[in-house]
Amino acid sequence: MKKLINDPDRVLADSLVGYAAAHPEVRVDHENRIVYRATPKDSGKVGLVSGGGSGHEPLHGGYVGLGMLDAAAAGEVFTSPTPDQVQEATKNVDFGAGVLHIVKNYTGDVMNFEMAAELASAETGAQVETVVVNDDVAVQDSLYTAGRRGVGTTVLLEKIVGAAAEEGRPLAEVAALARQVSESGRSMGMALTSCTVPAAGKPTFDLPDDEMEIGIGIHGEPGRRRVPLAPASDIARMLVEPVLADLDFTASPAIVMLNGMGGSPLIELYLMYGEVVKLLEAAGVTVARRLVGDFITSLDMAGCSLTVLKADDELIRLWDAPVNTPGLRWGV
Amino acid sequence: MKKLINDPDRVLADSLVGYAAAHPEVRVDHENRIVYRATPKDSGKVGLVSGGGSGHEPLHGGYVGLGMLDAAAAGEVFTSPTPDQVQEATKNVDFGAGVLHIVKNYTGDVMNFEMAAELASAETGAQVETVVVNDDVAVQDSLYTAGRRGVGTTVLLEKIVGAAAEEGRPLAEVAALARQVSESGRSMGMALTSCTVPAAGKPTFDLPDDEMEIGIGIHGEPGRRRVPLAPASDIARMLVEPVLADLDFTASPAIVMLNGMGGSPLIELYLMYGEVVKLLEAAGVTVARRLVGDFITSLDMAGCSLTVLKADDELIRLWDAPVNTPGLRWGV
Repeated sequence: MKKLINDPDRVLADSLVGYAAAHPEVRVDHENRIVYRATPKDSGKVGLVSGGGSGHEPLHGGYVGLGMLDAAAAGEVFTSPTPDQVQEATKNVDFGAGVLHIVKNYTGDVMNFEMAAELASAETGAQVETVVVNDDVAVQDSLYTAGRRGVGTTVLLEKIVGAAAEEGRPLAEVAALARQVSESGRSMGMALTSCTVPAAGKPTFDLPDDEMEIGIGIHGEPGRRRVPLAPASDIARMLVEPVLADLDFTASPAIVMLNGMGGSPLIELYLMYGEVVKLLEAAGVTVARRLVGDFITSLDMAGCSLTVLKADDELIRLWDAPVNTPGLRWGV
Repeated sequence: MKKLINDPDRVLADSLVGYAAAHPEVRVDHENRIVYRATPKDSGKVGLVSGGGSGHEPLHGGYVGLGMLDAAAAGEVFTSPTPDQVQEATKNVDFGAGVLHIVKNYTGDVMNFEMAAELASAETGAQVETVVVNDDVAVQDSLYTAGRRGVGTTVLLEKIVGAAAEEGRPLAEVAALARQVSESGRSMGMALTSCTVPAAGKPTFDLPDDEMEIGIGIHGEPGRRRVPLAPASDIARMLVEPVLADLDFTASPAIVMLNGMGGSPLIELYLMYGEVVKLLEAAGVTVARRLVGDFITSLDMAGCSLTVLKADDELIRLWDAPVNTPGLRWGV
């Protein structure tokens, strides 16, 4: 295992030290492993809390800041945060208008966020709503989920719903918007190589030199199938087709994300985006906004994923609103 | 070779197609492989041109935009752009106030930019100044250079000098500032793995599973030495010590970049930054600003580099000025 780490068991703790030093605009509670805004908006704003296993950076800690999250609870690598962590985060960003939990659909995450919501309500009377993102069209159930996995749509949701919360909208409205976004996004990923979990010390799965995995999860979970290596144009088709087959994206403007899994360089991600956008446009999709880069990763895995979100003028307006986080920044 | 590409000989051309589609704020001249601002500032501003071999994304095309470059000429992967390309870019961003060439110190780059400057002057009478960045403390001469290689300081220079050019300063002043920044930056890099050049189809060098290369270049050129794999804290020392030994950084505020080589995930880069900043502060360096992420890469190489720039209040002010490029964005 070749990694820039000290001790496989201290990767998250050590990384949060560097994260705090790199970004004075956030505050890290190292004991509870929670990232907060350094300057919280504290009057009447719905608090947005997300979190999950680490290893998907910049998700979620990188999306804390103006126009996105108020707090992110970081679990160990590929491990759900505990109910205590999420409860603590929830309590601290309840500014009197309630809290929205943004949860990716993995069994542990769903369970622990649910427990945290109950604990927080019992402790302080906090009003908590929850949205569960389950946008991965690759598989129905999987290693860590009942139902579809939550992947790339989470990033787009945190941006759009973050902008709505920033406007001071009430909890019910923010939660309804979150559900709309969640239902409007679809994703599909692929891997050229496995990731290596530091504590495991070896690749999560074996993938021969001449094969790739289509429909991979963000924890190295198996996808739909293994196929021989293929040109980028064929890979693009294997990502675009199942996404378009699952939802009609032709009637509305779309927000498209071509996301890197962590080990693929930008020159390849741009190349893939070029292939993907050709297919989307040929299928009648109007790409209104786009992101290309590493936004929800899987440690050092080489590969990429595609997320397409069915938007409308209002979602585009919220997308364009100012955002100032380590992972996404514009308009400020 | 596992890559998201179509044809090893079309990687740059295909990637530029995706880049243009991803970033409507830039304009790509596909024939000449030049990235321009979509909305150039055309009155009296010094034009900033950089470029070099591809494979270092987001450098240089990702730094075209408000507050940084006016044009970037993209060579094939790890290959200098031709004099014709640079001449064309120079001509098109000469808004009457002259043009500054920002060149990394590699023999081919230096030669071709020099020829381009002569051709542009002969053709249109353009005034061209040049700054050559040679900040890599790892080796004196190397595979592709006489003298030190140009690496990370280039990114910081393009930001700072870009801000000065945006203010409408005259060419002589912009060039003098560029030389000051170039002389004030030092870098040192390391690799856990080799990169693989698409046209070669195999890793540039062999690096055993239990070794790493200290002082690596951004094209996979050999560094100072190979050593056994070590914890991040030791790696940080191997980067920080030679940088601090080469220039006194204790008397002024510093801008620090912890850069990923392309194949290392963000969780590791933050961890490395945490180790580096501890050593810098212990050595009396005041870190005023910092960047952590992939800014000057080497295809899919796993590893990182450190750049430290001796700044002053004026450089910090220019650093903080608005920038709006695909690769760096703040204050807008």
